[in-house]
Amino acid sequence: MTNKFKVGIVGGTGYTGIELLRLLSQHPCVEIVTITSRKDEGTPVEQMYPSLRGRVNLNFSSPDTPLLKECDFVFFATPHGVAMSMARELLKHDVKVIDLAADFRIKDKDIFKQWYKMDHVCPDLLEEAVYGQPESKREQMKNARILGMAGCYPTSIQLGLMPLLNLHKNEGQIVDFSTPIIADCKSGISGAGRKADVSLICAETYDNFKAYAVKGHRHEPEIVQQLSEMAGETVPFIFQPHLLPTIRGIFSTIYVRLTDKGYDTDLQALYEKSYASEYFVDVMPAGAIPETRMVRGSNYLRIALSKRQGNILEVLVVEDNLVKGASGQAIQAMNILANLPENTGLTGIALVP
Amino acid sequence: MTNKFKVGIVGGTGYTGIELLRLLSQHPCVEIVTITSRKDEGTPVEQMYPSLRGRVNLNFSSPDTPLLKECDFVFFATPHGVAMSMARELLKHDVKVIDLAADFRIKDKDIFKQWYKMDHVCPDLLEEAVYGQPESKREQMKNARILGMAGCYPTSIQLGLMPLLNLHKNEGQIVDFSTPIIADCKSGISGAGRKADVSLICAETYDNFKAYAVKGHRHEPEIVQQLSEMAGETVPFIFQPHLLPTIRGIFSTIYVRLTDKGYDTDLQALYEKSYASEYFVDVMPAGAIPETRMVRGSNYLRIALSKRQGNILEVLVVEDNLVKGASGQAIQAMNILANLPENTGLTGIALVP
Amino acid sequence: MTNKFKVGIVGGTGYTGIELLRLLSQHPCVEIVTITSRKDEGTPVEQMYPSLRGRVNLNFSSPDTPLLKECDFVFFATPHGVAMSMARELLKHDVKVIDLAADFRIKDKDIFKQWYKMDHVCPDLLEEAVYGQPESKREQMKNARILGMAGCYPTSIQLGLMPLLNLHKNEGQIVDFSTPIIADCKSGISGAGRKADVSLICAETYDNFKAYAVKGHRHEPEIVQQLSEMAGETVPFIFQPHLLPTIRGIFSTIYVRLTDKGYDTDLQALYEKSYASEYFVDVMPAGAIPETRMVRGSNYLRIALSKRQGNILEVLVVEDNLVKGASGQAIQAMNILANLPENTGLTGIALVP
Amino acid sequence: MTNKFKVGIVGGTGYTGIELLRLLSQHPCVEIVTITSRKDEGTPVEQMYPSLRGRVNLNFSSPDTPLLKECDFVFFATPHGVAMSMARELLKHDVKVIDLAADFRIKDKDIFKQWYKMDHVCPDLLEEAVYGQPESKREQMKNARILGMAGCYPTSIQLGLMPLLNLHKNEGQIVDFSTPIIADCKSGISGAGRKADVSLICAETYDNFKAYAVKGHRHEPEIVQQLSEMAGETVPFIFQPHLLPTIRGIFSTIYVRLTDKGYDTDLQALYEKSYASEYFVDVMPAGAIPETRMVRGSNYLRIALSKRQGNILEVLVVEDNLVKGASGQAIQAMNILANLPENTGLTGIALVP
Repeated sequence: MTNKFKVGIVGGTGYTGIELLRLLSQHPCVEIVTITSRKDEGTPVEQMYPSLRGRVNLNFSSPDTPLLKECDFVFFATPHGVAMSMARELLKHDVKVIDLAADFRIKDKDIFKQWYKMDHVCPDLLEEAVYGQPESKREQMKNARILGMAGCYPTSIQLGLMPLLNLHKNEGQIVDFSTPIIADCKSGISGAGRKADVSLICAETYDNFKAYAVKGHRHEPEIVQQLSEMAGETVPFIFQPHLLPTIRGIFSTIYVRLTDKGYDTDLQALYEKSYASEYFVDVMPAGAIPETRMVRGSNYLRIALSKRQGNILEVLVVEDNLVKGASGQAIQAMNILANLPENTGLTGIALVP
Repeated sequence: MTNKFKVGIVGGTGYTGIELLRLLSQHPCVEIVTITSRKDEGTPVEQMYPSLRGRVNLNFSSPDTPLLKECDFVFFATPHGVAMSMARELLKHDVKVIDLAADFRIKDKDIFKQWYKMDHVCPDLLEEAVYGQPESKREQMKNARILGMAGCYPTSIQLGLMPLLNLHKNEGQIVDFSTPIIADCKSGISGAGRKADVSLICAETYDNFKAYAVKGHRHEPEIVQQLSEMAGETVPFIFQPHLLPTIRGIFSTIYVRLTDKGYDTDLQALYEKSYASEYFVDVMPAGAIPETRMVRGSNYLRIALSKRQGNILEVLVVEDNLVKGASGQAIQAMNILANLPENTGLTGIALVP
Repeated sequence: MTNKFKVGIVGGTGYTGIELLRLLSQHPCVEIVTITSRKDEGTPVEQMYPSLRGRVNLNFSSPDTPLLKECDFVFFATPHGVAMSMARELLKHDVKVIDLAADFRIKDKDIFKQWYKMDHVCPDLLEEAVYGQPESKREQMKNARILGMAGCYPTSIQLGLMPLLNLHKNEGQIVDFSTPIIADCKSGISGAGRKADVSLICAETYDNFKAYAVKGHRHEPEIVQQLSEMAGETVPFIFQPHLLPTIRGIFSTIYVRLTDKGYDTDLQALYEKSYASEYFVDVMPAGAIPETRMVRGSNYLRIALSKRQGNILEVLVVEDNLVKGASGQAIQAMNILANLPENTGLTGIALVP
Repeated sequence: MTNKFKVGIVGGTGYTGIELLRLLSQHPCVEIVTITSRKDEGTPVEQMYPSLRGRVNLNFSSPDTPLLKECDFVFFATPHGVAMSMARELLKHDVKVIDLAADFRIKDKDIFKQWYKMDHVCPDLLEEAVYGQPESKREQMKNARILGMAGCYPTSIQLGLMPLLNLHKNEGQIVDFSTPIIADCKSGISGAGRKADVSLICAETYDNFKAYAVKGHRHEPEIVQQLSEMAGETVPFIFQPHLLPTIRGIFSTIYVRLTDKGYDTDLQALYEKSYASEYFVDVMPAGAIPETRMVRGSNYLRIALSKRQGNILEVLVVEDNLVKGASGQAIQAMNILANLPENTGLTGIALVP
């Protein structure tokens, strides 16, 4: 492998940034050219993250570094609003942009503004951008210049429902949408990011569990957008996230009201067939129950199904929010853009125990 | 207080047993006369539980000890099946029986047998027994000789729904039962008991989260029995428990489909009024969100309400599974039987942080 | 109890503040008159700490509130430097000052300045102040107007060594000080306080363990001061703290080189006798091992001894850093000043499990 | 790589067993031929460990399987006593034996019997066996037929002291052995194994910290044997292990009394030079402090040094007890026997956060 792809990371000091570093530094076809942090410019990466000692020999550089323009791919592991401010310039230099934040996820710029409290500065690029979720958008992604990567919760919910909603779209009358789909989700605390916030400190969150965002969460419009596309109609949807006292892991328990026809369908078989060729999506055997540790540190997502009374289908999904829910899926996306096997550099097995 | 009530505990080595000891040894009107453990007969309590050193000066005795018959109250903190085998003899000696297990919870002995895989050995006592849940059954409890204390999950779900279901019963057309009530519950690991089981060891459960019992849980028939009584009709109900990596705490997220009339009702006001005189039930202000630590180690239960789209009411409930969900509530029940103020010995405040 | 003592708390939003509230609100002889927080003035206490809903009916007031001057006792649960700036004014109004920070712990104001980077503004009061550690300073404390309460680590180390060092002082030749005493201590994260600091967030500290302060910790001069007083000579001392992924609890493993005479002494008997009349200090039986949970949420401190090869005595000590290491001990001190039984309001038993 | 080495695992259901599977299934030069478990014979590996779904397609076989004899290497991830009962037969078939238990660690069979309460059944093989610790025994290991792999605590302590003790051996008068070396060690709970034991369940160990084995631990004779070999004289040694509420990770805080000459030596330079060519041993910069997460899931071991008063050198060491402390180091050893680059299949980076 003489010619490696050159990649850059903008915003390398958060958890998706270090996770990109952990994964990319082990990727056989990639050279990490630069990683930026305005605040920590000049600091050796290994000083901030000693787990990378001996493996990542870079200092954080300024986001203004010209090195970004020499990259094949630039990942944005930044707060919302950064990628859209830098994307146009990078595209001019034939750099492909992979945004892990929300700048290119929501197609309707008014809805974007409503939830993210900022104007979208490049609506034309937003229109061009492809939603970055390989299992549901692989074909559209292949020739994209900009990817707005799927969020962590949205990835788990979409993949948990895709075979069902696609069937509903194709055959009709599978889901009974008179009752909203309910996603009762639980996330490890790394999902809240690496920031100085009293509510995140260990003495506040350890040995504790709570719900949050009962009045609405930014991932809702993204999820509804994608689920509705899958179903071919607007999906009524209730999203209730909770905060787990763990570092990593999302567990989504999804309740869907089916029609009698939907309830009589062999959904286990449907899911197994739908995902048979997907390396990262594992439909567990009937009766098995996923656990977040079964995917800890890996790019896998595991799904189990259970039919309950009253025509309710319960879908259980686990993923690692920092891997399949963020950095791992972003590298999976890069592999697609680079025409590499999709699992290149991503075959790590979950850390159990 | 010269004359203290004499109490005994059968099965003192599990978590509800030690929690009874912690609370009763601080109760101003109680003398703990004996605590039994067949397996650990003769062992000083403080050797097994050094947290009680200097405070509980008893050795575990055999369950055959005559001291039990001299008690005013005997608590059973035993596996299912023990209380019903000993109750008749104790009643003969005018001892009141407070069972923390399931022997006297489920009125239908066939349903009991179906879920607990044993015949009920004293159906007449089962018929006499009162379901031990103070806020919903206070009047019936006052003159009971046998209490079948409410389970941990059931307590949180019943108190989370009682004002709503009572309104439905009284006024009709509040809940739309064409969609089942869904209780997505999360419990700390102490709920699984103190037993040598690989699936409970720390390396299996720490930094992990999972669902369990997707095919049914023993608390279901108890919950349905009580909810249906509250609602005045059979309540369709889906129960999905999950295991939290915490020691204590139950968090129940309950989704109820309302009628338009129900949805238009001021439910916050209804709940606040319903529980206004309850010492242990706290209806939090609109918009507040409970956390399990807010009740850690205490007998409080806190509730919050949120109306969601599609006529869905979301009820959030927290309790400490070992206190309000078990030993604390059992002492609250004893206070009722003893005609003491209901919060005697139970005013401890949650341990935060 | 018609006349309750009036108490105030300055700086009520940190962990020692809320712990004072939890304990004082259950204290039978106390009325909490005011609690201050400059930043959160006007906020209801129960809004910040819902665990106190229904139990503490106060809003945070400004530190300038005249109510402080009407108190019998004012606790300072503030950063270092606050108590010394307010003490003189309070003393004028016959208010007794109990400082949980370091302003009145270290007798040498130069050493104070060296470690805390501020001048001491009232050296006369520093000289008057008594070191607030009941088991070692009870008599001196009784008539004090100002108490500089012992720190969390210092309390565990001092009580772990007091009988031994006192014997050395009285009989000589017990400890071999040619090798320093080594205290390898481990503290739960609440000891770092309730502050917005990235290094304290759960994703940084959960499932992790580390040493800190290898180059020196502010508790060292305080510990050396007190140990040397106990021993009657300067004690060479190495202190190595570590951060535990728990909320509460300090575990100190202390290694002391003894002389042959010291090693031949029956130290178990010495310790048991020394602490026989102390309510809160528990010398565990020979061979027993303390655990932090054995004191969780309680004012107890438990000690175990083990003789190792090479004349090394190993002393194991556990305490709850927020109770015996801070707020509980401060209330114990107040009880002394108020001539109340020392355990009034402090008899809570550790929360296990 | 057409010809892969054939490996077998005896005792695959414990934590070192699954960790071998996780690592070996990603090793480029290895084919896992069989994994045995008498108790779970016939069970698919992926059923017990769903994290391996799609990656390990084996069922547990009986330990009597003839497949073991066809292997190039057989790992024993079994309780003590198993490897020595099966080793001779395997050697006859030219299988190399790598034992992760204690059967081949301790050279003196009487000491083995004293600590492990069983006779050694093949003293001749014990004599032949090489202690499996690559950084200290690489040359002797190269042609070994049997490796008794170093224990988890011993690895951290030996590598933490090797440069110092070797210098003492070579130059003399570096360590002052009149005071014992003290190793205050803390281990995550996976070190206790995957077994049904009440003392290991989450409700007993979470939010808790304790010492254990104050009267002696089986790793002591192994550590003393190796340290004494390094130092060229018998090393007086005190070992105090503690149990951390984490899954993985060992943190050893080691206190060594130096001579004046030793204290004046540039030990930072000594350590950096000693380990300069070691891939897995990282001497951190002066002033840096290791944390267990910095090696979580990886085969790295990180060391920091700190000189304290009284001629005390403090050595801080972290490793993942299941990787460098067990399965990773065993594969590193296999790579040596197989004449592969020592880091083959072991370059995974620690999982942070």
